[in-house]
Amino acid sequence: MTLMANVVRTRSHLCSAIEGELTGLISTRSNSARAYGPEFSRLWDIAGENILGGKFVRPLLLVETYDAFDEHARDRSTAISIAAAIELLHYAFLLHDDVIDGDLVRRGRPNLVGALLAEAGQLPPMDQRPDAGRPDSALHWAQTGGILMGDMLLAATHQAFARVDLPHPLRIRLLDLLEHTINETVAGEQLDVGLGDGIIAPELETILTMCGYKTATYTFELPLRAAATLAGVDPSVESALATAGRHLGLAFQLQDDFLSTFGDPRRHGKDPFSDLREGKQTAIIAYARKTSAWAEIEPWFGRPDLCTQDGENVRRQLSECGAETFVQGHIDQQTRAFHDVLADTANPIPDKVRNVLLDLAAQLEGRQS
Amino acid sequence: MTLMANVVRTRSHLCSAIEGELTGLISTRSNSARAYGPEFSRLWDIAGENILGGKFVRPLLLVETYDAFDEHARDRSTAISIAAAIELLHYAFLLHDDVIDGDLVRRGRPNLVGALLAEAGQLPPMDQRPDAGRPDSALHWAQTGGILMGDMLLAATHQAFARVDLPHPLRIRLLDLLEHTINETVAGEQLDVGLGDGIIAPELETILTMCGYKTATYTFELPLRAAATLAGVDPSVESALATAGRHLGLAFQLQDDFLSTFGDPRRHGKDPFSDLREGKQTAIIAYARKTSAWAEIEPWFGRPDLCTQDGENVRRQLSECGAETFVQGHIDQQTRAFHDVLADTANPIPDKVRNVLLDLAAQLEGRQS
Repeated sequence: MTLMANVVRTRSHLCSAIEGELTGLISTRSNSARAYGPEFSRLWDIAGENILGGKFVRPLLLVETYDAFDEHARDRSTAISIAAAIELLHYAFLLHDDVIDGDLVRRGRPNLVGALLAEAGQLPPMDQRPDAGRPDSALHWAQTGGILMGDMLLAATHQAFARVDLPHPLRIRLLDLLEHTINETVAGEQLDVGLGDGIIAPELETILTMCGYKTATYTFELPLRAAATLAGVDPSVESALATAGRHLGLAFQLQDDFLSTFGDPRRHGKDPFSDLREGKQTAIIAYARKTSAWAEIEPWFGRPDLCTQDGENVRRQLSECGAETFVQGHIDQQTRAFHDVLADTANPIPDKVRNVLLDLAAQLEGRQS
Repeated sequence: MTLMANVVRTRSHLCSAIEGELTGLISTRSNSARAYGPEFSRLWDIAGENILGGKFVRPLLLVETYDAFDEHARDRSTAISIAAAIELLHYAFLLHDDVIDGDLVRRGRPNLVGALLAEAGQLPPMDQRPDAGRPDSALHWAQTGGILMGDMLLAATHQAFARVDLPHPLRIRLLDLLEHTINETVAGEQLDVGLGDGIIAPELETILTMCGYKTATYTFELPLRAAATLAGVDPSVESALATAGRHLGLAFQLQDDFLSTFGDPRRHGKDPFSDLREGKQTAIIAYARKTSAWAEIEPWFGRPDLCTQDGENVRRQLSECGAETFVQGHIDQQTRAFHDVLADTANPIPDKVRNVLLDLAAQLEGRQS
């Protein structure tokens, strides 16, 4: 068996372990939810289906890193519990983000809010005055479901962290890490909304900070640091991993915005002008705003009715004013910083852990979607 | 010093201890929030002010019950931590409830969403297209603050429960209790919204269930059971307290709706027709709906423009159709059931704990607001 086949086999094995843990967490809750009626347990059923259909990027990173520290790790089941909890946290953030953004769809399928809305619209008329509810009562009901389910997933994440049977100081380190992650992610979400609502000035620096907080912290730093903590390694290793994770995470997030605007829609499959249409404050826009090209771009920015031809014009102007090169340069800079951390011989990151990270970076660097 | 003066002194001492614990929890978080910018730390500042201005009903119940179990309790600081955490949980629920209901005011003062909205409205115009944001961008920003701050308070509650340094099985009992409480409260909130949105049929049984879940569980059952758990008493005592707490909580919630409609507005200080105007599905309405009077009441129910004279007519009809007597009977029944639990000599509740509960019931029975 080749090395690559081995990696694939190990990862699919890991995926099954994570899926099993998540299935357990969700089905226990889904079953106790039935006592509270069909509307309540429906929340767990829809959320469970969406969570189990995910790619488990964060839990896989945690367990692969943990395993790389110590192949014969004593407490792998705890690592798998925490990994699954991080996937619940991810979904809790997505749900509240969807409610905040008023989104009904994620990756081309109805999200939880969209699913609840569709079901509420199909309900038979009730034995009461039709005007007793609000005019938008089905949407209100669906969005309430999104808020409440996000709360329950946030609670479930904390429960998993709180229940680990580890020595008190180690448990506290994990809880500190969770607290730090939630603070940064929430701060990032608030910045993002403040930028979109015109409450916070769209400075480049602010946008870069927001990108790091909103996604990089919980997607990269959290799984890496949790793995280091659970493997019981020196805090200096954890700290080096955190730095590497933040660089990689920021590169990843900038690349996301970059591909949305300049990428090939046949490959990423998204509407190529959605960021422009919704007036999203990205690093690309922050750069362009400082150039003389902005006067021509501005009238088209944030227009929901932007047509393909105008969209292509704006994209060309964004490229010509230097924004494309600028953001690509930033992505390269973060990627280099990531590799520098790994290559630093003073860094005590073991080779096997380094390989997990390099493997992840290679996947991200090669992606077109 | 009289016995009553002693009680008052003890309670004011307890209030200070709880206030001190909450101040510590909030100021630590408020200080670390500053690193993420003024908008983020503003959330903690406003929430902190509101939380510290509260009456600490739930934490007081917990610590008074705990002290009544054992005056020389070993681990009183843990009881105070958990008591403070329950106050954070209460505020997290209020916040998400306010966002869901679109409320900007609570007890006559702007709530967190209202405060953020007022501040956003006073912001100087920014260096960007005025139409880049949504038309309702200040409200969107303020409600996002409500969702995110509720998330952080929910996280802070769990952190306090998770960090207690107790033997593993005791910690797990506390975590089970928190999980049970959150499930019931969220189920109650969802029922309440479903009733209001016309998604769930307004049956009397459903409304009574909702009242118990939404408030009684976390306000009465949680503090009582947490006190019993922390005092290390037998599960049978905890179970008796839970039953007593649920009866008292349901009586309390029904009394709340009763006073809103039939109480003296000069004493409760609220708009006497707000429940009717917003079409709130209460036990009063559920009873009236089954009577012949409903045909006359229905056209006025849920009308925001209901005038005082029509409001008084509806109130008289609700009284004459038997709804007033019916709900008062339900309150009496729950109060009797509460006293029966306490009086049951087979019940192992110690006298001092019984007195804490009787004292609380006397406060609730005598209230007019």
